[in-house]
Amino acid sequence: MKKWFNLAVVASVASLAGLATPAMAQFQKAEDAVKYRQSAFFVMGQHFGRLGAMANGRVPFDAKVAQDNAAVVESLTRLPWAGFGPGTDGGSTKAKAEIWTEKDKFDQGADKMVAAVGKLNAAAKMGNLDALKAAFGDTAATCKACHDSYRAK
Amino acid sequence: MKKWFNLAVVASVASLAGLATPAMAQFQKAEDAVKYRQSAFFVMGQHFGRLGAMANGRVPFDAKVAQDNAAVVESLTRLPWAGFGPGTDGGSTKAKAEIWTEKDKFDQGADKMVAAVGKLNAAAKMGNLDALKAAFGDTAATCKACHDSYRAK
Repeated sequence: MKKWFNLAVVASVASLAGLATPAMAQFQKAEDAVKYRQSAFFVMGQHFGRLGAMANGRVPFDAKVAQDNAAVVESLTRLPWAGFGPGTDGGSTKAKAEIWTEKDKFDQGADKMVAAVGKLNAAAKMGNLDALKAAFGDTAATCKACHDSYRAK
Repeated sequence: MKKWFNLAVVASVASLAGLATPAMAQFQKAEDAVKYRQSAFFVMGQHFGRLGAMANGRVPFDAKVAQDNAAVVESLTRLPWAGFGPGTDGGSTKAKAEIWTEKDKFDQGADKMVAAVGKLNAAAKMGNLDALKAAFGDTAATCKACHDSYRAK
């Protein structure tokens, strides 16, 4: 909870000064930003996991199901990042402090994930299991890269 | 937790019998279904709330922001319902038992919400505040109707 007070101060100052609205100001409170990014990741993860089950042969490949799930993943992939604004490093979260101290690097990782998901969605539309497997692996690697660096065990 | 065991039995039986996959089987466990629907509603609610702030005059109308938020709401609006499958009435949830005992009526309410969100998204694309206000009010009424009947206080 250490940052909630700081956040309120920052928001008030920004408001008084008429500064550009920071991403964080989209949320009424920092807890909402944390819950928002966790929620978006969870929903995305459920659909991504269903692609993984097909890519890894745990369930039979179904081109339509793959396409539907990949479309949902893509529709969500740009959302969580707004929840990592200034002042959102407290509360119930596995997010490591490096996200905010290395924000440019973190954002680059996010961009890589968004790009990989775009290719994953294109692969799913092809209706070809081998293409899905390759794109799934590439995307999962972008997830893992950020989890390894920025998510506490 | 009362239903988790039943769910496992249902899933096993369905699997053994080679029955059509129920919606619930998309989730590895019932807790995931509950968390999934709650997460989807939370993300949707954040974006819907930003439209409400404009519709109710709490923040200035910005046509581009309205359009972006309405598009996210529409992309999410079909998701949560899969999380209300058989056996998902336990755990940490405000969902009332009537959802499952009146499933057809509940599903009709969901369909009304999806239809209203479609109109909301169309209104946001028009870039007209009055149209947004009307469509927001109609959509909010569909949210409230189900919350009143099916969500515990």
